Parts: sequence; structure tokens; C-alpha cells
Amino acid sequence: MEERRAQLIAAALTLFAHRAPEDVSLDDVATAAGASRPLVYRYFPGGKQQLYEAALRSAADELELCFAEPRSGPLTVRLRRGLDRYLAFVDEHAAGFSALLQSGSVAETSRTNAIVDEVRRAAADQILLHLEVAEPGPRLRMMVRTWITAVEAASLMWLDEEKQPPVAELRDWLVDHFVALMAATAAGDPRTARVLRAALALETAEGQVGALARRLLPVLGDASHLL
Amino acid sequence: MEERRAQLIAAALTLFAHRAPEDVSLDDVATAAGASRPLVYRYFPGGKQQLYEAALRSAADELELCFAEPRSGPLTVRLRRGLDRYLAFVDEHAAGFSALLQSGSVAETSRTNAIVDEVRRAAADQILLHLEVAEPGPRLRMMVRTWITAVEAASLMWLDEEKQPPVAELRDWLVDHFVALMAATAAGDPRTARVLRAALALETAEGQVGALARRLLPVLGDASHLL
Repeated sequence: MEERRAQLIAAALTLFAHRAPEDVSLDDVATAAGASRPLVYRYFPGGKQQLYEAALRSAADELELCFAEPRSGPLTVRLRRGLDRYLAFVDEHAAGFSALLQSGSVAETSRTNAIVDEVRRAAADQILLHLEVAEPGPRLRMMVRTWITAVEAASLMWLDEEKQPPVAELRDWLVDHFVALMAATAAGDPRTARVLRAALALETAEGQVGALARRLLPVLGDASHLL
Repeated sequence: MEERRAQLIAAALTLFAHRAPEDVSLDDVATAAGASRPLVYRYFPGGKQQLYEAALRSAADELELCFAEPRSGPLTVRLRRGLDRYLAFVDEHAAGFSALLQSGSVAETSRTNAIVDEVRRAAADQILLHLEVAEPGPRLRMMVRTWITAVEAASLMWLDEEKQPPVAELRDWLVDHFVALMAATAAGDPRTARVLRAALALETAEGQVGALARRLLPVLGDASHLL
């Protein structure tokens, strides 16, 4: 039954979320799901690796929806909501997230790498949708993909640093990072400049970009020699 | 002899630079170095994997020096020189660089991962030296490490995109990215704000930050509703 299979995957995902893959046994999964070992093997004849990949697949389905958001309102509000979901996932699946993304994971196969790449691509595609560009062009595409790499790297460091700074600060920094990177890219790419102008028009003084601008002005105020 | 060993490593590095590790044989290395297969085995009894790790080690020694620069002059000039060296290395070792850093490389072991991590750490330490901070604090450290991840990711994409945009544009974008990310971080972290102020004081209107500021002003000029 599909339902039984889903239960086994859910139990596996919870175990893999909190322990490195090498520290989870098939017996652990059977016990957690209230199932027998033969039953687990009936659904997953490939054993632990197959179960791991099925759990990863179900995590990927969840992660790919992170940045799915109605395309209305300020961009930074949508990014904040997306990051809230992404970072909540990282928080809840800390051990599994680290084990998967730290290079040289024992659980790494060409299939697990393909799933991870698919999540990155899906996140990039969703963010490009929010930027409302039919033809993003290479610079904007590189910018979004670079930012996603940065989000991943910062999430790993955050877990390494015992979840410091508080998650809301990390989220705000990552959103500011996006805005700053978009500005740096817009400086050299007219297409990104158009997207940035359109995005800034929807932001408000009370919102995150307003707060960023007001906090930056005093720091940059000394730099009039650059103009 | 140490010299003979160095010759073998140099021949191996050249081969691994242009082909994926699985496409290089020990015979290829012997031929390229003008040596016999038994001689290669005498120096590298561990065979191809040992030779690969020795070649990676020598590449790492070179990469770790990328951002070693006299600590004088504008920060962006130093970053440009460092990136010129880094990107020249990426350009010359394209196949090997991709194979090593794309997750799931066949050549990946805990030792190769440790070497890659060491290069990242060394680059971060050198950049923190340029920022002239004795105690960088967690935010500044996260910022620098995130940027290094971004440099790596952008380099891989650049290779994937048949080395487009031209390398000088990629370098300028990565430097602008650093400045923008430092500004975004400074907005929320007084320590980074001090570092940014000191760095901006050394920049000139004719330099890269001046050019960035002048190109950004027209884009941000429409955004006065945010203040």
C-alpha cells in the first residue's frame, strides 16, 4: 500500500534528519515506523540506500516548494517567506542537511547529487519567476544561482555555529545579500538594472529595503570622495 | 630524487588539469613525464589515487597563495589581483577544477575534501588579513566564507558556460559582489561597518568602487520613496 510506504519514508526522513546516514540502520527505521524488518525490505528491496534516496526525494519535493509564492507584493517579502520555509527545513533536518551537503558524504551517489542539483535548479527557476523576466540572460541567471549557493553555504555555517545568529537575523542578512548582489549585478548589466528598478518600485520605506537603505546611508556617507 | 618526484607531479597536474581523473591513466603520466611505469610506481606506490592527491596538494599550495598580497593600497585592487590569479588557475585547470568541485567526483576522498577545505580556509584567512581586523567576529567571517563559496560556484558556472562572460568581467563582478556583500553586512553589524568605512577611505573615484557607485546611482535614483 502506498500509505504504508509513505509511513516508512516519513519515519526514515525523521531519523535521517537527526543523524548522519551511517548512524541510521534499517532496524531503526522499522522500529520508528512500527514495522517489521521484512516489511521494510518488501517496500525497499534496495535496503538502506534506497530508503535514504526515497527520504531525500520527499525532502526535495518539500524544498522545491520553498520559494513558490504568489507573485505579488514586494520581492523582499516573498524572499523572506521563502527563506523562512527553507531555514525551518534546515533547522528541523540539521544532521541530515549537513551530512548531505558536506562534500564527501558517505551517502553521496550520482542519484543523490542529481536530486540536490534539481532542488537548486527549482529554487533558481522560482526566484527568476519572482523577478518577472521571461528571458533572464546569463548575468541574472548566474546571480541567482550564486545567491542560492550562498544560502546553502550560510545555512551549513549556521548549523556549524550552533545556529547563531538567530534565524531571523540570518534570514534578513540573506535577503539584504540578495538586494546587494542584484545592485552589484545591475551596475554592469542593463537587463538586471531594469529588473532591479521594477523590484525597488514595489518596495516600501517601512520594508526591508527601506531599512537597509537607512542603515547604509551613514556608513556610505563618508565616501563622497568616490563620486 | 625529489626533483624526479616533482617532475612526475607536474606531469600529472597538467594531465589532471585537462581531463577528468577517470580519463587519466598511470601510463599517460609516465609517458608525459618521459618515465617508465615502474618508476612512477616507485615514487607513488599508491598508484593513480596517490598521484592525484599529490597533484592536488601542489595545486592547493599554488591556490592558497592567490590572495597573498602586500597589505597596501585599495582593497579592491588587491582583490582584483587575487581573483586574476585564481581565475587564471581555473582557466588553466578547467577540467580538473570542475571534476574536483562538482559533487560526486570519482576522485573524491576524505583527503581530497580536506585539501579543498584547507584552500577555502586559507583564502578566507588571507582576505580577513586584508580587512585588517584582528578579531573579525562571526558576521564578517561568515560574509568572507560565503563570498569564497560564491567565487567557486561562479567559476564552475563560468566553465560550464564556455568561459562567458570574458574573465575580466567575471572578476569585476566578483569584486563588486564583495563590496556589495560587505555593505549589506555592514548595515547590520557595527564591526563590519567600521571595516567598510576604513576600506572605502582607501578607494578612489577612478577605482572600481568609484565606478560601481557612479553606475549604481542612476539605477537607485528612482528609489527615493524608500528613504
